[in-house]
This record gives sequence, structure tokens and C-alpha cells, in this order.
Amino acid sequence: MGVNTGNEIKKKKIAVLGATGYTGMELIRLLANHPGVEITFVSSESHAGAELSEVLPQFYGINNMKFSSLEIEAIPSEVEFVFCALPHGRSMEVVPALLNQKKRIIDLSADFRLKDSSLYPKWYERNHLHPELLLQAVYGLSEIYRQEVRETDLLANPGCFPTATILALAPLLTENLVDLKSIIVDAKSGVSGGGRSPKQAFHFSECSDSFKAYRVANHQHTPEIEQELNFLQAGKLLPHQENRPGSGNATITFTPHLLPMNRGILATSYLSLRQDISEHELISCYQSFYQEEFFVNVLNFSTLPETRWVRGTNFCHLGLRLDKRNGRVIVISAIDNLGKGAAGQAIQNMNIMSGWAEETGLNSAAVVP
Amino acid sequence: MGVNTGNEIKKKKIAVLGATGYTGMELIRLLANHPGVEITFVSSESHAGAELSEVLPQFYGINNMKFSSLEIEAIPSEVEFVFCALPHGRSMEVVPALLNQKKRIIDLSADFRLKDSSLYPKWYERNHLHPELLLQAVYGLSEIYRQEVRETDLLANPGCFPTATILALAPLLTENLVDLKSIIVDAKSGVSGGGRSPKQAFHFSECSDSFKAYRVANHQHTPEIEQELNFLQAGKLLPHQENRPGSGNATITFTPHLLPMNRGILATSYLSLRQDISEHELISCYQSFYQEEFFVNVLNFSTLPETRWVRGTNFCHLGLRLDKRNGRVIVISAIDNLGKGAAGQAIQNMNIMSGWAEETGLNSAAVVP
Amino acid sequence: MGVNTGNEIKKKKIAVLGATGYTGMELIRLLANHPGVEITFVSSESHAGAELSEVLPQFYGINNMKFSSLEIEAIPSEVEFVFCALPHGRSMEVVPALLNQKKRIIDLSADFRLKDSSLYPKWYERNHLHPELLLQAVYGLSEIYRQEVRETDLLANPGCFPTATILALAPLLTENLVDLKSIIVDAKSGVSGGGRSPKQAFHFSECSDSFKAYRVANHQHTPEIEQELNFLQAGKLLPHQENRPGSGNATITFTPHLLPMNRGILATSYLSLRQDISEHELISCYQSFYQEEFFVNVLNFSTLPETRWVRGTNFCHLGLRLDKRNGRVIVISAIDNLGKGAAGQAIQNMNIMSGWAEETGLNSAAVVP
Amino acid sequence: MGVNTGNEIKKKKIAVLGATGYTGMELIRLLANHPGVEITFVSSESHAGAELSEVLPQFYGINNMKFSSLEIEAIPSEVEFVFCALPHGRSMEVVPALLNQKKRIIDLSADFRLKDSSLYPKWYERNHLHPELLLQAVYGLSEIYRQEVRETDLLANPGCFPTATILALAPLLTENLVDLKSIIVDAKSGVSGGGRSPKQAFHFSECSDSFKAYRVANHQHTPEIEQELNFLQAGKLLPHQENRPGSGNATITFTPHLLPMNRGILATSYLSLRQDISEHELISCYQSFYQEEFFVNVLNFSTLPETRWVRGTNFCHLGLRLDKRNGRVIVISAIDNLGKGAAGQAIQNMNIMSGWAEETGLNSAAVVP
Repeated sequence: MGVNTGNEIKKKKIAVLGATGYTGMELIRLLANHPGVEITFVSSESHAGAELSEVLPQFYGINNMKFSSLEIEAIPSEVEFVFCALPHGRSMEVVPALLNQKKRIIDLSADFRLKDSSLYPKWYERNHLHPELLLQAVYGLSEIYRQEVRETDLLANPGCFPTATILALAPLLTENLVDLKSIIVDAKSGVSGGGRSPKQAFHFSECSDSFKAYRVANHQHTPEIEQELNFLQAGKLLPHQENRPGSGNATITFTPHLLPMNRGILATSYLSLRQDISEHELISCYQSFYQEEFFVNVLNFSTLPETRWVRGTNFCHLGLRLDKRNGRVIVISAIDNLGKGAAGQAIQNMNIMSGWAEETGLNSAAVVP
Repeated sequence: MGVNTGNEIKKKKIAVLGATGYTGMELIRLLANHPGVEITFVSSESHAGAELSEVLPQFYGINNMKFSSLEIEAIPSEVEFVFCALPHGRSMEVVPALLNQKKRIIDLSADFRLKDSSLYPKWYERNHLHPELLLQAVYGLSEIYRQEVRETDLLANPGCFPTATILALAPLLTENLVDLKSIIVDAKSGVSGGGRSPKQAFHFSECSDSFKAYRVANHQHTPEIEQELNFLQAGKLLPHQENRPGSGNATITFTPHLLPMNRGILATSYLSLRQDISEHELISCYQSFYQEEFFVNVLNFSTLPETRWVRGTNFCHLGLRLDKRNGRVIVISAIDNLGKGAAGQAIQNMNIMSGWAEETGLNSAAVVP
Repeated sequence: MGVNTGNEIKKKKIAVLGATGYTGMELIRLLANHPGVEITFVSSESHAGAELSEVLPQFYGINNMKFSSLEIEAIPSEVEFVFCALPHGRSMEVVPALLNQKKRIIDLSADFRLKDSSLYPKWYERNHLHPELLLQAVYGLSEIYRQEVRETDLLANPGCFPTATILALAPLLTENLVDLKSIIVDAKSGVSGGGRSPKQAFHFSECSDSFKAYRVANHQHTPEIEQELNFLQAGKLLPHQENRPGSGNATITFTPHLLPMNRGILATSYLSLRQDISEHELISCYQSFYQEEFFVNVLNFSTLPETRWVRGTNFCHLGLRLDKRNGRVIVISAIDNLGKGAAGQAIQNMNIMSGWAEETGLNSAAVVP
Repeated sequence: MGVNTGNEIKKKKIAVLGATGYTGMELIRLLANHPGVEITFVSSESHAGAELSEVLPQFYGINNMKFSSLEIEAIPSEVEFVFCALPHGRSMEVVPALLNQKKRIIDLSADFRLKDSSLYPKWYERNHLHPELLLQAVYGLSEIYRQEVRETDLLANPGCFPTATILALAPLLTENLVDLKSIIVDAKSGVSGGGRSPKQAFHFSECSDSFKAYRVANHQHTPEIEQELNFLQAGKLLPHQENRPGSGNATITFTPHLLPMNRGILATSYLSLRQDISEHELISCYQSFYQEEFFVNVLNFSTLPETRWVRGTNFCHLGLRLDKRNGRVIVISAIDNLGKGAAGQAIQNMNIMSGWAEETGLNSAAVVP
């Protein structure tokens, strides 16, 4: 006699495109434990025809599917949700065909995150193939755009750094307390954020036991962060609303660094306030803003975030300090770059799009140590 | 509307004693996702009265219990299973009282693993307080003692190194193919195997970026491994059966090493056979022995185990090679020392003791990378 | 026939107090290759009487001395330089006796770094026992205080974070270009910065594969950094000069973080300028300021510092970026916390105090990888 | 006034071919501190024309040469020693031309290590281009072949695993005490052993926080180890002597593993003896064999080797245990794979070939931590 695990309900069918990258692997891992879904199609250009659990032995006993090649027509018609974990630039090629097939798309690339198509050539070195879809896409930072997420068929899942940064700043921005010119984000990411393709910079002996900054003042997540900070400052108007009076004009300084570890982002954000508040008021502001949120944990004052506490999860931990000697606010946010920063939030969005409890399939604690 | 997760069934009540060590933390993490149980009591000497999720922030949103101090009488009467994740020597003090209270005990210490009480002073430097319980206890290597596990109220959960080693050697021993004098086990463990108390040897800068052997030819898991190899060789007789004709007399060489990583054991076992077999027959022997086992994965020849593939799980991966130049067999086994090597197997045993499917609550894939 | 290594010259005699901590070990390692000195006394409270190379096997074949207990009278009279690698608070107890014995002292603790004795109870939670020595002591940031270092008998060797920070900011401060209210220093250190005593926070499995901030806006290196930034802004007046017109009043925000690696500090400093300059002028300003310095390397624009490139050395690498979108300057500095941040700079100071070339004994490249 | 560092003597001129791999980098690092030599030529196919310290910033201030492309004729005539740190297979192409130019060659590839040319197609998948040079080449395990090394112009520097293994076994083999059929070597190497070219297996997130065996019973260092064990068993006859009566016929089992760290090899060797000896006699045998050796440290019984103690050095640390329960000997050897396992030993050999003290330029202690 087994335990009733609720498996008898009818499950939604899911496809994962680009399943052998780190984001794809994380989607498969998390979806395998989701009671409402069944993965029925996984694509891999490099391993089409092979068994998933031979290529990725961590799935032995968990998932014994075979990889298909990436052909949109081959995706079964009963598939409702398609997770695109394809490289940037590749998603925009396949999304229109998927929309034609009435799929609901959760795209984990950057291809549909920016509303202003002119930013793509500037920051991603390519023109957008379908700028007309940018305003249609919903930016899937779940805690901010929950209403819009529910209805969309084209969800642009946020970047890892933007997720950590926006959650760190949203309460103060929403209260219009931030001097927008003052924002500095010093972010640190584990190496899995750089993808799975072998590169010199991510060769073990080049980044192990070392630490560096990279793409200083030049990282492609900068416009994504600024877009959303400005929307928040403007009262979180829907992005397609024409008139955005008072819209912010944040021009942040964003510095990413590479941590000698696999997973995790810790972002340390600095900002000046437009009025004095106490450290107590600061923490209250955050606790109030996030009090209904399952995945955002405002740590009490005795604790500061550590990336290990969110490893493998969809949680975001926030720590707050007021530098009383100069009035500056320091917000520290920790997420898993593959969790809340990618696959976890994608599934949270699927839950919202399906009308399910947001934590469904995502309520596991971090693997510590 | 949520997904039906089967939570409406009546759950067994669980206590975890010693909940702030690494094994205790792992039990709480895994049990939190088990559909058949509810943790109702957690003890911690050092944090009694504190909230679990404040002491262990990875459980924010997952478990908001408070720690109790370790008093047997305080364990609620409706608790059926008690997991003892106490230090070696402490378990044997509390187990009799727990048995009196009709609890079913899953003890993760070494205190009830050895059948011969004279081994305790020799290898653990203390006399056993209750030698009369040693034969009553069932050694909980699930795949080997499944029948005995089902009925017991005192389960001695195996050590991490013994689990990795015995699963690696069981098929050949059962077939009586092994030259018992030839067995060498070169084992490597992540640092979490050394516990959570600060010690010089486990200080980050003492063991990071380094590697060493320790307790060479002198590790306390040696007699546990030999006890079980001998039972296997003798046809897996019940340990309390008086007459064990043909019982083996393995005297292995066992060398543990400390890996600069958190979790994982990889044991490389070497042995000579009593008759020649081909590499193909070797792999077939293992695949046949473990074909019904959910948690033991005999990798096909193109792949060798890596600890990351079992990180955080109850899986054991086995790789096999025949050194054709000298006929020696090499068996490589990988487990998570806190998973199949401790908390995972403890829960697998609880599932067996409850008549549930063994994989209940344990069917998550490893967090990779 | 050997190579003439100049060993025939008369060597200065050296004592190292507190030789089994990480800083003491690094002093012994570096001094062993210094052609001008000979270590004749090493103290260790915990290992007095033992052979150094038994306690610290990395010195087998290199140094076969025995540890003495820490008794000032036992230090041989011919010892000229005494390196104090004792815990904070312990140095101030022994320094007066050492001065009485006419030793030249290089103190690696914080005990003589701050000029204002009232800062000790505030930031170090103890009163200073000898405030009268604070103005006598020379702050040994070699590149800044070279003239003062030459003559002193009481050198206060700078902290690791202050060294990384001050070298990063000195050129712009000296040019009076910095808005002193704008300085934010986001610093990251390897675990060896926390010392060698076992502590929960530095237990391998607590900090490996994780990252966190600590002592946010509250770290004891803050006043040391501010003291020196203010002196620099004021034209690098000698600290004991009474009149410091225009002296700065920097109140920085300083946030240290703990990196999952042994050695290295990377500090990312942010500041606003009092006038616009181009990125080219910025780099020229630094290259000009440091052009005569052997140990400070202003990387050209195509490269950013990585801690591995200075591991085990006395070098400091600087990288510069101007965030053109908002005019903010980002300076990235990398040092080894035990090298330029402690033992390396201490030896550089000894070289200056001895009239030797500064790079003597310190001209080895980093061990990479 | 500086310290007399003996720089006034005439230095030998050195060339390093293949200077941007890990072995080449280590040669440049170590040679920069060698008082008897001056590097005058460094080649790199990929960076010809670039400054060494721009490509490898750890050499800023240490070495400001430019890379040349690899053309034998371009090597200055005054160069006496040529270190070949080229890929396997490439060395055998250039060595004859170098010999023609009367260079003394220290080759760090495998191309001249094996005496039996038929082993190259079998283990390295290529035929040897110059089998006639194999007997001329001297196998440069310095402690064993010191006499032969002195005179040769073609030195085959040993592999990293063979160095660790042979030093571990030489004393017992020389005493003819070993049952040659019993030898098992379980070796573990840091990732730098795999070279600097990006590969999936050495991508940070694929090998960090994990551990695996590879090339089990199939590694190309196996015949090199066996060749030398057999020579040792046969009384260390010169390899080109025709008659080797009693030559051994070791057929070892060799299992390499990949450690999640940069540098270091720890080899755990197991063997049975042809006669009983005590642990005390065992240690005496080793201490006696190596008592004159600067670089081989037989640790006393209370200590076991750790790779960190030899990191960046040319030392080999040996630990010994007798498993009294079955008479098996366990020898643990630790080296740095890039030090004694490659560049360090190459320089030791150059010192021998030059008649210098062997430790010249190699007497630095390990960077710990």
C-alpha cells in the first residue's frame, strides 16, 4: 500500500525545449516533482534520440524519456505549456510558431523581457525579429506582475540578476522613497550562471579559488533592471499603458562578479533615500510589502542572507541594514540563479497561469550543506 | 484552486532527536516533503525554545516549529516513529526508554549496528550500555534486510561508508565469487561526514583545496563493513541465527579520505575473484541483483559514477570495471553520505516499516550542478 | 658546485611572535626566502617546545626550528626585528617591553593602527592600554608612508581591507577629485581572513559553496579606512601634525563579504567625482600615481583583476571603469589578504626600514592555478 | 642599498616552449626565482607577439618578455636548456631539430618516457616518430636516476602519477620485498592535471563539488609506472643494458580520480609483502632510503600527507601504514602535479644536469592555506 500522492488527477502536458543546459536540467528536476504536470517532450539538439537519464544520470529512476530534436511540429498537440530554455536569440525564432499552435509559452531567455526593441541591438548585439511581440509579452517577476501573468500566453521569465535586484528594491521604490540616481548594485553569481558550454573563463582551474568582476558597467541585465525599477517607481503601471507620468529614470551602476561556486546569487544593493527613516521602519516596510509572499523571506535583524539557504529553491531571502553613519540603505538579496532566477520562477509562473497555488511543486527546502 | 497533493490522508507523527546536526537537518528537509508523515517534535540541546526556521533559515516557509529539549517524556504519545540523530553513545542512553514508550526507533548512530558488543570498546572506546539490544536491532541496509526491517521496532541505520561498500560488493559476495582476503576499499567522503561541530581539521582553510587520508586501517566503520560482508558471504543469514556455517571471515583494508566538498561518498573497491568472469558477466551479475531496486543504479559501461549525480538523494550509483590485465574487479559506488548514507536510507526504512512504497518522499533527482 | 645565492652576507636576526596562525605561517614562508634575514625565534603558546616542521609540515626541509613560548626576555638580544602576529589586544600588552629592549617592531594586529584612542572601545570593545604610543606608531601602508616607515621602531601594519581600499582610492583622493560622501566599498574576502581558530561560521560545510555578507556597516576596519582616506584628502599630512586644514571627513559605507575560498580580497569601490573626467584620464591618473611602484599594477583597460593573480604575493592589482551612463567611478582592487594584506606588506616595510630594495624576498609570482 | 642576491654570476640561458599551458606557466614562475638561469625565449602558438604579463597577469613585474611563435631556428644560439612543455605528440616532432642544435632538452611530455615504442600506439594512439631516441632518453625521476640525468641531453621528465607512485614504492621494490602481483594504486588528482584547454569534463560546474574516477584500468600512465617498477625490482639497471635478469613483471591496477581542487596528487598504494615486517621496520626502510633526499619527506607516524603541504613545491610527502589485521602495506604519497609532478622536477633535473645543488630555486615552502 502506498501513500496517496494525488497522482490520479489529470495532469497538464509540458514540453521543455533545450533540456541539457543547466536551466533545462533544473526545469526537469523541479517538474518531475510537480503534482499537476507531466513532461511529454524534451528537446536537445546535441542528444536527440538519446535517453535523458543516460545523458543526465541524475535522472535515473526519475525520468526515462528520450530527447527529441527541436522541431515545433513534433511537439504533441496536447502539450499546453512550453518552457523555452534555449539560448538568447533562438527563442525569438521559435516563439511565433509556438503561439500559432496555441501553446502557452514560458520563455527563459532574454528575448521577450525588454519592452523597447532598440535595446536589443545595443545590449545583445542583435536586432529583434519580432518587436511586435514585446509589448504582448508579460514580464514574469511573479510577485510584481501576478495579475498580468495569470492571463498571458507569452511569459518572459526574468533574468537572474534582475530578479535578485528588483525584489530587493521593490518595496522602497513602490513607496517612492528612493533617490533614483543613487542606486548601486554589486552582484555576485555562481558559475552555473555562465551556462554549460565549455569556455576558458569557466574552466575549473581558471575560476576555482579565485574571484573577479566582469562586464563592469556593461552587463546586458542592466536595461532589464532599469526598465522594471522605472515601472515600479511609476506606480507599477502596465507596460503597455501609453501614459506613464512620473515614470522613473533610474540609471543604475551594476557590477556582476563571479563566485567560485556552482549556484547562487547574492546582490548587495546600495541606495540613498529621499527622506530619513529608521532601521525599524525600513524592515517594517519590507515585511509589510512581502507579508503574503511565500517565496520572499525578509530575515529578521539578527540574520543576513546566505546563498546556501536558498540553494535549489525558489526562495529569495532579504537582509536589510541602514548605515546610520551616512543614512545609506543596504539591501542584500539571495536567490538561486537557477531557481528563483530561472527554472523555479518559471514554474511559479506556470502555477499562476494555471490557477494553482504558487508553491505547488516548489515547497522543498534547500539542500544544506 | 490548488493541485490535489493527497494531504488529506492521516499522517503518521514523527519525532526527530538531534535536529540541528547535518543528519537531523537532512531528515527534516526530506520528511517535509513526505506525504505520509508530519514532524511533531524536534529536539535540540543547544536551541531548545527557538524557532527551527530562525536557527536553520533554509526552513523558512517550510517548517515553523520550535525546538524542544531532549526529554523522552515530552515526546507526544501519538508519535509513532522516532529518528535518533544523536551523537554516538547518546543513542544507547535513550533507546530503552523510547522502546518502553512503544516508539518505533530509527537510530542513525552506530550504537546498534554491531552484533558483537566487544567491538564497541575496541572501535568506539566505550562499553555498550545495552548489549542485550544488539541482536534485537535490525541492521537497516534496506536492499539487503528488507524483510527484517519491516517488522522491527529498533532499526540501526547503517553508516555511510558501510552503505557505499556493502552495496558495491553484495552481488559478488552473494554469488560467493569473492576472494575474501583480497578486498580493499579506498573511500572518499565530503566534509559533512565529519559532523557540524567546529574542529580544526574541518576548518575551511584547513581542508579546502586539499586532500588527505585519515584513520588509515583504523576507521570505526571497518568492523561494521566486515560484519555485513561476512553475513552476505554466508548467505545472508539472519544475524541472530546461531549457526552460521560457511560464514565469511573478511578482513578488509579500509582507507577513508577527506574530499574538499560538502557531500558525497565515492568508494573504490578492489577485489579478486575466485573464478574468471568476463566484464559482461560482471555487469550482468550486478544488473540482475539490483534489477528491482529503485535506488541502486548499475550504470552501463560507458559511464562511471560521479557524486554530484546522487547529491541530496537516496540513490546509489555503481560502476564496474574488470582490469583485464590482472583479473581484478573494481567497483565504484557513489552515494550522498547524508542521503543513502544517513537520512535518506532512514526514511526508506521508515517506508518499509510502514508498508509504503520505498521511494515515497524520496523520488527527487539530485540538484545538479 | 652550487649557485652563488649571496648567503654569505650578514643577516639580520628576526623573531616572529604568534607563528602558528595564518599570518605567522605566511611570515615564516616569506622570510625563509629573504636573503637578508634569518629567523631566530618563533613563539607559539600552544606548541612551545615542538618542532615547527612537525606542527606545520609545509616547512619540512625549510625550517627546523623549535617553537618557544612567548616570553619577551627569551627573545635573543641580537634580534633586530620582531614581527608581532598576535591576536588583537595581545600586541598592546607586549609592545612596550619590546620597545624597551630596543627592538624594531612590526605589529600585524590592529592595536596601533588608529590614531584616535577613543575608537578602540567603540570598534574593538576594549580600551587601549597605551594610547600614548598611537601617535608614535607609523601606519605602514608602504606606498603612502614610505618616508615615515623608514625611521620608525613601531610600525602598525595595515589591515587587509584597508590596504585594498586605500590603494584603490589614493590617486583620486590625492588629486582631491572625490566626493567624500559618495564612497561605497563592497569588499569580499577569502576565509583565511577569519583566522585559524575553529568557529562555526568558518566550518567547511558552513561556508563552502556559499556566500554572504557580514558585519554590514559595522566592520572594525571602517574607522581605519576613514582615518587614512581623510589623511589622503588632506594632502597626506603626517598624522601627528596638529593643523590639518581641509582634512577630509569621509564617512564610507563598507560591506565585507565571505568568499568560499582560502585567500584573496577583491574590493569594489564606488565613488562620484567632483568634476568630470574621461576613462582615459582616470586610468592615466592611476598609472601616473603608481608608475614607480613595484607592487601596484594598474591593469590596462582590457583586463580586470582576479584574486588568483596575486595569490601568495605582495602585489595589488587595480582595475578601473567609468560608468559613463552616470559618471560614477568603479575601482576594483585585488590583493592577497595574507600577502599585501598582512605578511607581505610587513616584509615590504621591514625592507624599507632596513634600506633594502622593497621587493627583496617578495618578487615571486603568484601560484596559478 | 640592496641585499646581495648573487645576481652578478653568469646565468644560463633558457627557452620554454609552450609557455601558456599550466606546466609552462609553472616553469616560468619557478625559473623566475632561480639564481642560475635567465629565460630568454618563450613560445606560444596562440599568443605569439603578445607580452607575457598581459596574457598571464600573475607575471606583472616579474617577467616582461614577449611570446615568440614556435620556430626552432628562432631560439637564440646561446640558449643551453630547452624545456618542452608542448602537448604529447608535438614534442617528438621538434626534439630531433633541438638535438641537432646541441640544446639540452628537458621534455615534459610523455613522448620519451617509454622505452618500448610499441606502447605508444597502444596507450597514446599514435606511432612514435623517433623510436631510436627512446633508449637514448633518460627517465628523469631525479631521486632514482640521478647519475644518468647528469650527463644526458634528452631528459624525459616523468608523468605526475608515475612520480607519486614510484617514489611511494621504490624503497620496498629496491629491497625486493613486494609481491608484484599485489600492487593497487588508487590515485587522485586536482583538475589542473587535465590541462588548460576548455573541456566539458573540466567545466567548473561539472567537476566542482563532485568527485569521480576516470579511465579506470585504462590510463596512459599505467605502462610508465610498470616500466619503472620493473626496473626498480630488477635492481635499477640502466634501461639500455641488454640483460635484465630478474626484471620484474608488475601488472598493477591503477585508478585515477578527479578531485574538485586545482593542484595536488595523492596516491594511495596498496601492496602485499613477500615477508612480514613490522610497521617500525617499514618506516625505517623508507627513512633510510630517502635520508639524503631534500625533496622526499617520510612523515613520522603521527602525521599523514595532505596535498596542501606540498602545493606549489617540488616536495613529495610519504605516509606509511601497515594494516596489521591482514599484513597489507599502505603507502600514501602527496605531490603537486605541476611541481614534483612536472615543472618542479624538470628544474630539479636541470640543476642536476648543471652540477648545481638540487634544491636551487626550489626551496620555497608551500603556500598554506
